Amino acid sequence: MDRIDRKLSNLTCIQCREEYPVQPFRYTCDCGGNLDYVFDYDYINSIWKKENLDKTAMDSVWRYLPLLPVNESPENINIRVGATPLIEFPNIAKELHFNQLYIKDDTRNPSGSLKDRASEIAIQHAKELGDNLLIAASTGNAAASLACLSAFHGVKALILAPDSAPIAKLTQILQYGAKLLPVNGSYDDAFDLSFELTKRYGWYSRNTGINPVMSEGKKTIAFEIAEQLNWISPDQIYVPVGDGCIIGAVYKGFYDLLKLGWISKIPALVAVQSENSAAVVNALESGGEIIPVKSNTIADSISVDLPRDGEKALAAVRHSNGFGILVSDEEILQAQLIMSSSTSIFCEPASAAAYAGMLKAAKENRISNLDNIVVLATGTGLKDISSAAKNVQIPVSVSPNIESAEKSLKELIH
Amino acid sequence: MDRIDRKLSNLTCIQCREEYPVQPFRYTCDCGGNLDYVFDYDYINSIWKKENLDKTAMDSVWRYLPLLPVNESPENINIRVGATPLIEFPNIAKELHFNQLYIKDDTRNPSGSLKDRASEIAIQHAKELGDNLLIAASTGNAAASLACLSAFHGVKALILAPDSAPIAKLTQILQYGAKLLPVNGSYDDAFDLSFELTKRYGWYSRNTGINPVMSEGKKTIAFEIAEQLNWISPDQIYVPVGDGCIIGAVYKGFYDLLKLGWISKIPALVAVQSENSAAVVNALESGGEIIPVKSNTIADSISVDLPRDGEKALAAVRHSNGFGILVSDEEILQAQLIMSSSTSIFCEPASAAAYAGMLKAAKENRISNLDNIVVLATGTGLKDISSAAKNVQIPVSVSPNIESAEKSLKELIH
Repeated sequence: MDRIDRKLSNLTCIQCREEYPVQPFRYTCDCGGNLDYVFDYDYINSIWKKENLDKTAMDSVWRYLPLLPVNESPENINIRVGATPLIEFPNIAKELHFNQLYIKDDTRNPSGSLKDRASEIAIQHAKELGDNLLIAASTGNAAASLACLSAFHGVKALILAPDSAPIAKLTQILQYGAKLLPVNGSYDDAFDLSFELTKRYGWYSRNTGINPVMSEGKKTIAFEIAEQLNWISPDQIYVPVGDGCIIGAVYKGFYDLLKLGWISKIPALVAVQSENSAAVVNALESGGEIIPVKSNTIADSISVDLPRDGEKALAAVRHSNGFGILVSDEEILQAQLIMSSSTSIFCEPASAAAYAGMLKAAKENRISNLDNIVVLATGTGLKDISSAAKNVQIPVSVSPNIESAEKSLKELIH
Repeated sequence: MDRIDRKLSNLTCIQCREEYPVQPFRYTCDCGGNLDYVFDYDYINSIWKKENLDKTAMDSVWRYLPLLPVNESPENINIRVGATPLIEFPNIAKELHFNQLYIKDDTRNPSGSLKDRASEIAIQHAKELGDNLLIAASTGNAAASLACLSAFHGVKALILAPDSAPIAKLTQILQYGAKLLPVNGSYDDAFDLSFELTKRYGWYSRNTGINPVMSEGKKTIAFEIAEQLNWISPDQIYVPVGDGCIIGAVYKGFYDLLKLGWISKIPALVAVQSENSAAVVNALESGGEIIPVKSNTIADSISVDLPRDGEKALAAVRHSNGFGILVSDEEILQAQLIMSSSTSIFCEPASAAAYAGMLKAAKENRISNLDNIVVLATGTGLKDISSAAKNVQIPVSVSPNIESAEKSLKELIH
């Protein structure tokens, strides 16, 4: 267990800039805006050196404790949240006419998604506040992640999910031993109910958008990318955007490192959304505010009407000189197949959307030939086999003899 | 890319002890027995030191190149095969009255199973032999693994599978871009047909049991366990056994290290099988030969009539002073739920079988209170959600208001 002694950071509202001390911990500003942690970078710089970090192996998100809003790392960190591979694909980069392509493979986290980074920090934060029950509304990766890591760290998890959620996702939550409360209503109903319970019982909320600790956990993916590239920032990062929490967190991670003087620029962040769930990209293109949409995309993890962290997402793209890009469901499914077969990383449709966005940007000459590009693989395709099945064709079977096999093989093997 | 210059190892038949040079490479002995690699440990000891290894971070199976039957590591190893977490569970060990419990979490490999260790080495081996197409008969983890890593390393994979295989598994294979030949017959039909094609076309066979390189790849899990425990062997390792390749490989890995003088004992290897697929354990208990069974278990990855590496499995258990243990399908499903909820590692039924075997052995006092125990988690539960769903009960849903929620919560939260 590591411990950090420091002045506690403050919370600031990203809309009205009102500041709050972190004790007592609060979720949102009185104005309704989302809160963000503010760190004392001079102090962190005085106690923590990049040179010392470079000497140890990347083992988990906990190596970045001085930049996390908690006091200690957990006793047992061997479950290894984070420290995921950053894999280069020079041949694909060459084909697409830019310098280098990297995929950050966050499907390799304990529950199969990037969400583990947020759950891991949130559970430690809850423990430090004396909370032993975490509540979340979700039907997907966040729920599985909270259930998984709560089992590991010995806290209780309560998941509220619409009762129409797929059996596969509910099964994973129950296998991890989390308490599941199916709600006869929509995801928004479950979300509102979970927040009401949070307020009434004082339980710890692991809801994206409300709780600023989520961004702080997810930002560790930016630290890792920077460290894996020897503190030389890539030029663009393609991020799937639903509620906007991940892209906001990636920005925050690079912002921290820039403030510490460890990197010299923040990469351009590219927000990739489905055409059918485009609230953030619509706002980027109009230059105005976020207007809720009626979402309907095969990429369920980024199917969102009202992005709960939309403001942070807009700021991330605007301040990093990034842009938004939209892809169709057809492009997403095509990209999933291209990505699996050319990179070996089999992702859920939301991550394939980011890859589709990168392919589209390359085609539209929005990537220069000197650029180093990162695509985030945020969740494994194994959680949603039915979408993946839509895009492959199982060949006709052969009789179990070599003559029959050879006839089919002529078409199969070139 | 690393390269090793050494005298090439020999191949020896595990039944008649006939020796063969590795060039030209062959799969089986003239007597029909399976082959095994023999290394020159004195030479390896003269060029490779444990002390130097200890100074570098565990990054992949390729750190053990001097003990692998290939000359080079691939150009790109960032996909990270192996280097999986070994996680300790002191509370569970205490409850079960032994010293320490570790789970080796091989679900964290690129395609979600231990089989990636074998595929990774086999693909490099095929490349060194000038083969560009690998063929395998499988419906499960081995097929997904070969398809995945072939996509990464740019070789072709041809999978033969019975056309009755689940759509989910066939989908994963096709997503990775492998060529799939569904066979209108049994798994044994597909296996025989694949071997016939191997002989006719000279393609490289990634079939367990036939190709000794499979054991050599899988043995890296033993190297990692030993290294992660600072070269102090655990007392027992619980291994799910189907065809017997994995347990044979675990033995081989510890045998290598013992011969090098890096460890002082080989752990007792415990072969865990389903009651309904018990060919290896039957032979262990009778003291005789392996007699094929008619297998029928929910743990599909260890559902085997005739274990293709049965002789290696028997030798592994006997020479390590281990034992066999049988578990029922009901015990497997129960153990899956216990394991997921108490360790956070959600495994396929085959791996849960190993955990069930450990629980049973503890209950039957076959583990002493000073023992350090390792259980292998060989494949992720996400690949077989339907089995996992059989053992959980989705609660009745509530109306989206706090009164309705509170009524259900009283039962749910204690």
